[in-house]
This record gives sequence, structure tokens and C-alpha cells, in this order.
Amino acid sequence: MQRPPPPPGYTTPIMADKAHLLQAPKGMRDFYPADMAVRRHIESAWRRVATRHGFEEIEGPTFEHLDLYTRKSGEAIVSEIFRIQHRGDAELALRPEFTPTLARMIAARAATLPQPIKWFAIPLHYRAERPQRGRLREHIQWNVDFVGRPGASDDDRRGLAVADAEVIGCMIDLLRELGLTEQIVRIKISHREVAASLLRSVGVTDDRLGDAFALLDRRDKIGPDEFAKQATALGLDSAQVVRLDGVAQIRVGADQPWDAFREAIGVDDETIVELRALRDQLDRAGLLAWCEWDMGIVRGLAYYTGIVFEAYEVTGAERAIAGGGRYDGLIELFNGPSMPACGFGMGDVVLSLVLQEHDLLPDADQLMPRPDVFVVPSGKDDADQRVISLVASLRSAGLHARRTYRTTRNIGKLLKEAAACRARYAAIVEGDGSVTLKNLATGEQETVKETDLPTAMASRAGRRPDAGES
Amino acid sequence: MQRPPPPPGYTTPIMADKAHLLQAPKGMRDFYPADMAVRRHIESAWRRVATRHGFEEIEGPTFEHLDLYTRKSGEAIVSEIFRIQHRGDAELALRPEFTPTLARMIAARAATLPQPIKWFAIPLHYRAERPQRGRLREHIQWNVDFVGRPGASDDDRRGLAVADAEVIGCMIDLLRELGLTEQIVRIKISHREVAASLLRSVGVTDDRLGDAFALLDRRDKIGPDEFAKQATALGLDSAQVVRLDGVAQIRVGADQPWDAFREAIGVDDETIVELRALRDQLDRAGLLAWCEWDMGIVRGLAYYTGIVFEAYEVTGAERAIAGGGRYDGLIELFNGPSMPACGFGMGDVVLSLVLQEHDLLPDADQLMPRPDVFVVPSGKDDADQRVISLVASLRSAGLHARRTYRTTRNIGKLLKEAAACRARYAAIVEGDGSVTLKNLATGEQETVKETDLPTAMASRAGRRPDAGES
Repeated sequence: MQRPPPPPGYTTPIMADKAHLLQAPKGMRDFYPADMAVRRHIESAWRRVATRHGFEEIEGPTFEHLDLYTRKSGEAIVSEIFRIQHRGDAELALRPEFTPTLARMIAARAATLPQPIKWFAIPLHYRAERPQRGRLREHIQWNVDFVGRPGASDDDRRGLAVADAEVIGCMIDLLRELGLTEQIVRIKISHREVAASLLRSVGVTDDRLGDAFALLDRRDKIGPDEFAKQATALGLDSAQVVRLDGVAQIRVGADQPWDAFREAIGVDDETIVELRALRDQLDRAGLLAWCEWDMGIVRGLAYYTGIVFEAYEVTGAERAIAGGGRYDGLIELFNGPSMPACGFGMGDVVLSLVLQEHDLLPDADQLMPRPDVFVVPSGKDDADQRVISLVASLRSAGLHARRTYRTTRNIGKLLKEAAACRARYAAIVEGDGSVTLKNLATGEQETVKETDLPTAMASRAGRRPDAGES
Repeated sequence: MQRPPPPPGYTTPIMADKAHLLQAPKGMRDFYPADMAVRRHIESAWRRVATRHGFEEIEGPTFEHLDLYTRKSGEAIVSEIFRIQHRGDAELALRPEFTPTLARMIAARAATLPQPIKWFAIPLHYRAERPQRGRLREHIQWNVDFVGRPGASDDDRRGLAVADAEVIGCMIDLLRELGLTEQIVRIKISHREVAASLLRSVGVTDDRLGDAFALLDRRDKIGPDEFAKQATALGLDSAQVVRLDGVAQIRVGADQPWDAFREAIGVDDETIVELRALRDQLDRAGLLAWCEWDMGIVRGLAYYTGIVFEAYEVTGAERAIAGGGRYDGLIELFNGPSMPACGFGMGDVVLSLVLQEHDLLPDADQLMPRPDVFVVPSGKDDADQRVISLVASLRSAGLHARRTYRTTRNIGKLLKEAAACRARYAAIVEGDGSVTLKNLATGEQETVKETDLPTAMASRAGRRPDAGES
């Protein structure tokens, strides 16, 4: 038969000068099945934990209007935005974070949404910066947010600590779910207004507070000399620079007596009333051992207003595993009502590195879906022809069924293939209307009729296959 | 306490001239919890069905090098690409489809990947065109692909029908899983080379075959007058235009006698040997009633080489629910070995419309994760204070636990709140160390100790909560 000519656009193989087409773009990842099994392991844990804490899943668009980010995020994030151009449309941006989308969605329906609003999302985020350890250009981030008051008539500053503690509690439960402990990870907690009070006492003027926050946030990245230089640029003399550095070094375990912290920071009780209320809540939830007060934590984004926190591997070898805080003014900024809000984001990249280092990532093999049954022909009669019918009937019955595509008649080799994909059973199609069902864990065998196979297998599987669902 | 000044970038609410910031960009979707529950319902079905058919999940980057699409897709898709600009980088594009990514990934590891390769993915895709019914700028698409030979020594043209039938079988099983039947949806199947043979017999010259395919693909969208005009531009006279239109109208149920189809298309047996082999496979899998031969189906993309197919709601009221085919040359184009390949994509938008029309989408309420237990204080003693500890211990035990945030002491109102979120049990914290556990389906009540609550609930839940996991 004559073949038609190649259709338009269907051209010759990629030449050397197009070698970049053979791999994913810089900082982006390909997820082969083993990589995907690990990714799903983490995503499933995020979803499972958020759900049992009463958060409901949402999603937003992959790109938003660029203005959404330029008007309220810190400058750092704006320079790292991938911009999309399309004729006639307002300028668009691949989302670098989720909070502006969340604020926009809540503002749009604040009048009808029951409160408090407890939402989570597992979006992809994008950063147009040089990829490095722990930072890629595309990453997956778990976002967990508590918006609105936890308690209708509770309008004092202490009341919001219930929400703060729920959000932090959800984060800690995830870490625990994946096998991490308070010996491996610590939640470092501070408070923007407490930090502001400390900065003022060092000598930072009110108009320089924002810059001082940004400097504290960069402290560990830029080194002591550059820190001193930039602190001097904020108008501080050398004694003040030392005191500023001292603020960043205030660290007290949250399970230490409260007085130890109060003395370390030396501010009045009224200033730290929210941190005190948070301590009470974390204590009731049994979470104090995971937490410490750390005045060096301020978060880079401009919209935080109260409690801020980050989760770190204790050796400090990696970037933050997660970070978040209170952003009480943001919903209003999108023309919504005044609503308090607290949330965090946790990316997959640093989390995976920490899990790997502590040998807490199961082998991908163990995470891949297990077939209920692997079907092979016996080599007799028309067994080959029966395989497709049997496999189709097993799958229609909800069973995870695979088959061999090999032409060998060597049953030993075929059973090895079944074992290699971790199938629970092998079904050997005899071709005479019967099937030999072999339990690959115990070696037990029995004979069933072809027509009874789906029922026989369903009762052995005892359930819908969980494959791919966890 | 004095509040610090607003940090930089933290500005006044959005004004009327920035009203576009209050909604998602054109053609993009916000998924509130109820929308997300429906999305997860569909994604879970995709994942469950692909897995039980032995396909393994993969993913690729959201954007690729622009060249990846310009060198091999049809022209239609290239004009609809969102381009990303970033200093110094090669030009990037939000992926309009998944097949080029898949081909690139397979080519990169063809030497080590066990064959045949059976993969699926659930990526997002982007189209920079005017949004309309069934077509948005961002949509979710299930991709299922079978790459390599199903049978090592089987190198004749009939052998690939095993792969074609597996891919089509997986698609049909998904439709069935969501409640669709062969009365509602039909899989229309054709073959690029058979279609080419028919077009030649009508009078289309070899150099115009690609254009003629594209015209057939647009036939239903452009109307008969425009069709005739464009067919004339291909060099056909008016009698030939009528015959071309006749080709597009050849439709025979696959469960009709084979001779009916053979006579309808009037080509020799050798030309249709692959379609015949596919019929045998579909017959064995019990799928013929879902399928029909339809010579009007050619698919818009340039890389298809053999079998092509689309799934349609039978009334024809909607766009294609899914479409795919054989693309045997594509892996080679990425410097990979010569490997046969067959796959399809199914988007969420048209599928959801068809499910809705046939009342097959459960209410979002029914799809939302159900709490195992809803915790409320009795109003006595320090019950309020005990709630946070109990809820934390329930969640740590893997239970989906929610609580009231209301300050009312009216137990009736609180139990209504528990029922409203479809909790299975309400736990009324008495404040004296005991909890009243109420089954909200039966109304049965019993008293358990606070410390026993997680164990008592875990045995009642009988399993890890499935919430959010399906």
C-alpha cells in the first residue's frame, strides 16, 4: 500500500543546534513514573492532612493579571515573575505565589461564604530566577489558610490565636505524617509587630521599618559583612548594628518557661499578648516541643501583619521547608470586607530534600500502584486470544489488571514479569475455559472458570483497588 | 500598642480602574470548594481507570521551549500558543498539548525504559484563543499513551491493533465509570492512510493531502458553503467536491457486519487491514457497540499516521469529548528510536458539560469530604478549653475532625452545624473528662472518656478517612 506524503509540519529529526529541545527547560522537571510516585506520595499526604484538619480544597488559574503581584508583594518577588504576552490582553504573569489569588477569590464572594473560611490548595508556582539547590523555576506548593474570626463574638487580640494554632498544627501534623519529628524540624515563630517594637528600640526609624524587615529576612543569605553594611545604610551606628544583629539571634524554645522568652526580648507584656495566647493554644494542642520563638524570622513578603513562622530542618542545612503568617489587611485590599487571615505555603522541593536526608522517602518501587492481577497465556490452545477478553472484564470490574505483551511461552519467565511489577496474583489462562490463579506472595494455586475470574479476583482484592488513589 | 507603618507595597484598596484584578483573567477558572470537588471527582476517575488499565502516571513542565510546538504540530495550534518572555532564555510557551513533552521524555530514556511504555498524565493545557462553550484558555486534560510494540516479535501491521484497542478500551472504561453509556457517547474511528486513499480516489493530489485532512477536520465547524469553497481551492471540480463531502459522511456502526463497512468505503482489503485487526480486538474486549467507523474523522494535528478516533455525545451538540490516534513517527523526530505510538487526550470541559446534560454529575455536596466527627463544647465547666486538645488528638489519629467556632451554648444549633457539614458523629465535650458521642445518622448516643475518644472514633470510622483521597 502506498503511504501518503508526510503531512505539513512533520519534519526531520532534531539537529544538534536544536539540542535544547531534547530536555525540559532550565529549572523545570520531568516526572517519570518513579518521580511521579514520590510526588503523589507528598501531594496525597498534603491533601489527607489538610482534609482531616477541616480545610477544603480550592484552585485558581495558573496565570493572573500581572498587577495582582506588583501592587502588594515585596519587590523581591516581582523581579522573579515570568510574564506572558498576548495581543490585546492586560499583561499576565505565571503565579509566583497563591495568597493574592486566594484573597481575590474570598473578596469576590465574602458576602455568601460561611465563615471562618478554611481552605487549602496544591498549586504550581513559578520563579524566573537562577535554579539552585532547593529552588527550581517550577515547584508545587501546599497552601493552607484560615480566614475570618474563629468565634463570632471574640474580637480581642487573643482570639485569633485559635486560628494561628490551627494553621501551625496542620503544618506540624503533615511533618509528622511523613515521619519527621521535633528532633528534625523546628517551627520558628515571631511576630511582625513585636519585631517592629524591637527594631525601634534598636534605633530603626518608622520610615525604615519595611527595609529593616527585608534586611533581617536576608540576614542568613548575605553574610555578616554585607549585613553590617546594609544595616549602616538604614541609618544605624555600629553599636546599633550589633544590637540589630542581637535581635535576630533571640531564640527561645516555646516549651521553655514563658518568663525566659519575656526576659530575652525585654518588651512589655501588652506587646507580646498575641504570642502568649498562641503559646497557650499550642500547649493545649501538645505542639510546644516543635516550636521556638525566633526574632530573626520576619518573612520576605510585605503583607504580613502579625504572627510569622517558618519550618526549618534543625541543622539549618536547607532553606525553609515552609513559611507563613498573619495577613489581616489583604482581603480588604481586594475590595473585600475587613477579615483577619493566617496561612502558610510549603513547597515540594526543600521538603523532599529533607525527607531524603533523613531516609524518610520510601523507594519509588514501594510507592507505585500494585496490580491486583497479572494475566498470562499458558501457551495452550487459544489462550493468547482469551487474554484480551479476560483483562477487559477484570478492568471493567474495577480491578487493576495487567498482562504480558511478550510472545514467550515460558511460564517461569512470565511469572517473573508478574512478580517484577509487584502483582498480588498471576492468572494463567489455560485456553480450555479455566484459569489458574496463583497467589504470588504464598505460591498457593487454584483453578477457576474464566467467567468467574472477575468475581473471584474482586473477593480476593476485598476492595476497590487503591492504586493511584492514595 | 503602637502599630508599625504599613510595609512597602502594602497600599490602598483596588480602585474602579483596576476592577479587572477582582476576577480571574479571561477564559481562566477559579475553583471554589464545590467546583474543586467536581474537578477532583473527574481527576480521580481518570487516575483510577488509567491505573487499573496498567498505565503509570507521569508529568512534565507547564511550559516548554516554543520550538517544541512550532516544528511538528499543525498550524492551528501554533497560533493559539501563550508565549513567555524571559531575559536571555530561549523563547518559552505554555503547553497547548502534552504529546510533544511525552515524545521528548521517551526519546531521552528510550534505551533504558522497559517496553511497551504505558503512561498517563493529567496536565493543564493553555490556548490563547477566544473562550467559548466547551473551550477555555486553561483546561485539564487526561492523556493516555501506549508506546512501543505490544509483542516483541510481532512486527506486522495487525500487531499494533492490540495497543490501539487497549487505548480505546481505557477511554471507554472511563466513560462507563462516570455513568455514560453507548447510547450517550460514540467513539468514531478512522485511519489516516485509509482516508488518504479515499481522498486520492476523489481526485485530491498527494501534495494537497495535508490540506484536505485539515479541511475535513474543520468540516462541521465551517458549514457547507465554506466547505465547498475551500474544497474547490484544493483543485477539485464540483462533482469531486460532492464526492469529498460523501467521504466525510461514511459512517457505519462497528458492530455491523464487516462487509457493510467494506462496501461503504469501497477500497481493497489490504488498505483496511489495520481497521479490520482493530475490529477483532475491540470485539474480544466487548467494545464494538461503543464504536463506529467514520471517515469524516481525521484529527487536526499533523503527526497522526494511522488509526484516529474521537469520542462524541451522540446528538452532536458538543465538541469532541476526547480524541487521539497513532503517531508512529514522533519519537524518532526527537532523536529517539523508531517506536510505534498511540494515545488520546480527554479534556475536563466538554466532559463536564456532557455529564451535566445527562444528570451524571453528583451534587458537589455529595462529593465533598465527610468529617468523621464534629466536636462541640457542652457549655459546662471548661469544655471550651478541652475542644482544641481533643480535636488535635483526633486529627493526629488520622481522623477527619472539625469543630465549631461559634460561641453559642445552644447544643441544638451546634448539632445542626455538625449535620450541615455531613459529619458522621458529633462529639459533645462535657468538660468533666467525658464526651457524649452521637451517631448523626441513627441518633444513638453513648458516653466515652476523653482519653478514649480517638480510639473509639477510629474503630467507628473503621479505616483511615477517605476524605480528599478519592
